[in-house]
Amino acid sequence: MPDRADPPKALIFDVFGTLVDWRTSVARDVCASFVGKAVDVDTLAFADLWRGEYDPAMARVRDGQRGYVALDVLHRENLDRVLDRLGLGAWLNDGERSDLTRAWERLDPWPDVVSGLQAAREAALVAPCSNGSIALMTRLARHAGLVWDAVLGAEIARAYKPDPDVYLASCAALGLSPDQVMMIAAHNSDLVAAQACGLQTGFIPRPSEHGPGQTRDLEAESAWTVQADSLPKLVALVF
Amino acid sequence: MPDRADPPKALIFDVFGTLVDWRTSVARDVCASFVGKAVDVDTLAFADLWRGEYDPAMARVRDGQRGYVALDVLHRENLDRVLDRLGLGAWLNDGERSDLTRAWERLDPWPDVVSGLQAAREAALVAPCSNGSIALMTRLARHAGLVWDAVLGAEIARAYKPDPDVYLASCAALGLSPDQVMMIAAHNSDLVAAQACGLQTGFIPRPSEHGPGQTRDLEAESAWTVQADSLPKLVALVF
Repeated sequence: MPDRADPPKALIFDVFGTLVDWRTSVARDVCASFVGKAVDVDTLAFADLWRGEYDPAMARVRDGQRGYVALDVLHRENLDRVLDRLGLGAWLNDGERSDLTRAWERLDPWPDVVSGLQAAREAALVAPCSNGSIALMTRLARHAGLVWDAVLGAEIARAYKPDPDVYLASCAALGLSPDQVMMIAAHNSDLVAAQACGLQTGFIPRPSEHGPGQTRDLEAESAWTVQADSLPKLVALVF
Repeated sequence: MPDRADPPKALIFDVFGTLVDWRTSVARDVCASFVGKAVDVDTLAFADLWRGEYDPAMARVRDGQRGYVALDVLHRENLDRVLDRLGLGAWLNDGERSDLTRAWERLDPWPDVVSGLQAAREAALVAPCSNGSIALMTRLARHAGLVWDAVLGAEIARAYKPDPDVYLASCAALGLSPDQVMMIAAHNSDLVAAQACGLQTGFIPRPSEHGPGQTRDLEAESAWTVQADSLPKLVALVF
């Protein structure tokens, strides 16, 4: 543990990829959506394509091309886009698309997360600092068994990470200064942005987030405050 | 139970007075602040005076005399005002005043609340819809043993109840329409405002909130969707 004045009073978390396995969970729901339909769908490729639209869609908000809209709206627009691109548009009606969009509320946690978060919550305040909306994070927490003190992140800042407003608004909402808060993520870029705002940083690699061929975020690319290969281990290093 | 289409998908709660006993809790912390000081303080009267500044302070925000500031700031300003009025200003320094202001994070729940909230959470999403800030609500929840799905209310709307924005923003943050949400409060005026926004309403009288001489909110002043004299009973009526 690097020398620090005080352990953080709150841990805030990236969620998609860091705490939950979006890829296989979304693929499962894609599979369910096409059950009984006479069409072959590569469900993991579908999940990857859908996730691939995530950053460009948020970039249009960050760049000011459009005002803040909740991620649920972007997820639905991105789903329509993916269905069109794959020539699958005729197979899912509006209601089925709405239901599939809620796949993002039904993502399973990585195996270490529920116990790690419980341990974290015994030592500090815990909250998601995700690009997901409050509605999405609230339902996902119920599905995945995550207990939060508050739901922070994009919606309270009406901006998307890595916009500094998201990190700073999340600290401010807890009444804490950035150096009293640690951002936990599996993505180096998220921690670069949090560190630039003055937050402590914790890295947990998730080498199968993007499947067996994953090439990025396999390891820490900077000297983050702490790093560990599971949440319980990270919590044990912090407190 | 009146005839309704569907039970609510979320219960949102007034907190001060409805879930926690601010009066005796604040009086206890006032007492602690003056321990060892050679001055007599009527701690319950102090709590009542402090609470008495609450509505006028928020009214200045509602009326547009000042922009939104978190309730923590108003509580501190109101404390300074009360100390001056009681001629006690010399007895508490800045740090002691800051600590006493956090008495609002250390309020004890009414005896029925923890079990009632657990029962509610088994049937629906639960969140505070209070005029308290996220920081205040988060710490108060830890103190009082309340488990929330999200922290909604004044801060996400940057407005104070009974401004309709607070109720509507809280429903929207959960991705629900107002008729899918029930507001629970011990104060008829809170429910009047929530009902006007289209929310379902639940009344729990707290006849000792203001002490033995309480004259208001002793009973329902309208046909609220449900009413009961404890939270578990109310939850049993709703679901």
